[in-house]
Amino acid sequence: MRQERAVRTRRLILDAAASVFDERGYEAATIGEVLARAGVTKGALYFHFPSKRALAEGVLGEQFAGFVLAPRVSKLQELVDMGLALAYRMRCRPVVSASARLSLGQEMGAVFGTWTIRTWLDATERVLREAQEQGELLPQVDVAESAWVFSAAWTGVQVYSHTLSGREDLVERVCALFEHLLPSVAVPAVLGRLVIDPARAAEVALEGERLAAEAGEPAGLDGVGAPA
Amino acid sequence: MRQERAVRTRRLILDAAASVFDERGYEAATIGEVLARAGVTKGALYFHFPSKRALAEGVLGEQFAGFVLAPRVSKLQELVDMGLALAYRMRCRPVVSASARLSLGQEMGAVFGTWTIRTWLDATERVLREAQEQGELLPQVDVAESAWVFSAAWTGVQVYSHTLSGREDLVERVCALFEHLLPSVAVPAVLGRLVIDPARAAEVALEGERLAAEAGEPAGLDGVGAPA
Repeated sequence: MRQERAVRTRRLILDAAASVFDERGYEAATIGEVLARAGVTKGALYFHFPSKRALAEGVLGEQFAGFVLAPRVSKLQELVDMGLALAYRMRCRPVVSASARLSLGQEMGAVFGTWTIRTWLDATERVLREAQEQGELLPQVDVAESAWVFSAAWTGVQVYSHTLSGREDLVERVCALFEHLLPSVAVPAVLGRLVIDPARAAEVALEGERLAAEAGEPAGLDGVGAPA
Repeated sequence: MRQERAVRTRRLILDAAASVFDERGYEAATIGEVLARAGVTKGALYFHFPSKRALAEGVLGEQFAGFVLAPRVSKLQELVDMGLALAYRMRCRPVVSASARLSLGQEMGAVFGTWTIRTWLDATERVLREAQEQGELLPQVDVAESAWVFSAAWTGVQVYSHTLSGREDLVERVCALFEHLLPSVAVPAVLGRLVIDPARAAEVALEGERLAAEAGEPAGLDGVGAPA
């Protein structure tokens, strides 16, 4: 019971912190405002997060947590589903959009950006490597290079969609990106069967959040936690 | 003579402002520091740029100015050359890298980001449209969508390279991006003849800067000036 309450309190604090970081950015955010929005005691907040930096790291850890993707038969489909689910969650979950703001922001990007980027890059490389092992990739593909291009390009799409449409078109643009990138890495037989469809994004995201909730712990990409 | 001196003074101020914005970001930059680095009088600075915001806009205007790309026979080669030259200049010209910092920064991104993104997007769309008119694109290509994907992905590559390597690998990564994207838009006969080579970046950038200097005025992408 006690533990359950602690988990709920931590959740309340992270959601409040995410909304404050998302609106104000890291520098302007104050612990006082997080306290007010979370409606918890100062002691409870400092028990979970001893500093503003720890709060930001907690929010960043959530970007890939609270979501577990069930393995797909096609690893390239798994790559598409990862990208679609993150796009959906970045639009609809403050804790995910706040993470993007923290890690791409001007002042804190140097501190938080590297961790987020490396996590996303590693997850992309892992699934592309599995795709290669089961013969889904064209022979000339350099997995490390393609993983870099896929995840960097995904981030650029996020930045553009955020700036130009408030992320309104993020899911559709991520689909367009995959349609542009996949022909240069996928063997034709796999390419023809990939489902790259905006309607799939919500479905995959909600399924993944349900799986994470059932697992009890937020597991994230390969069980990654908060930045070190 | 008088005009020549005014141009030189404006240049000194913009270079100083670029280095200050690049190091400190918009919020922390002060006009005092720009004055000190430029070595000009306060009156001269305020004559050219009446506010910090005007200074930032001047720097942003330079991102695409001071560079003129001679038209290429292949418009897809022109697209590659635009991307390579910007990558080279972003690595080696403070006025260009400061622009990226201003337009992707957390606080001022909302103000300056849209203009920079739209300028880059429009230039990409224009050259892709020309490529389509002369039969370089596959029939199913949606020019507006592809232009969006190409320029957003370019920006993501810039963000990743900046965060992970201080832009050390930017030119190589931009080449890798083009190699991933072009097969989905170019007809095979054109694709096979495109030169996508890091060694080309410096060459194209320096040629374009020489052309701009000869033209007397910084012309930029389609003669674009500072943001409105």
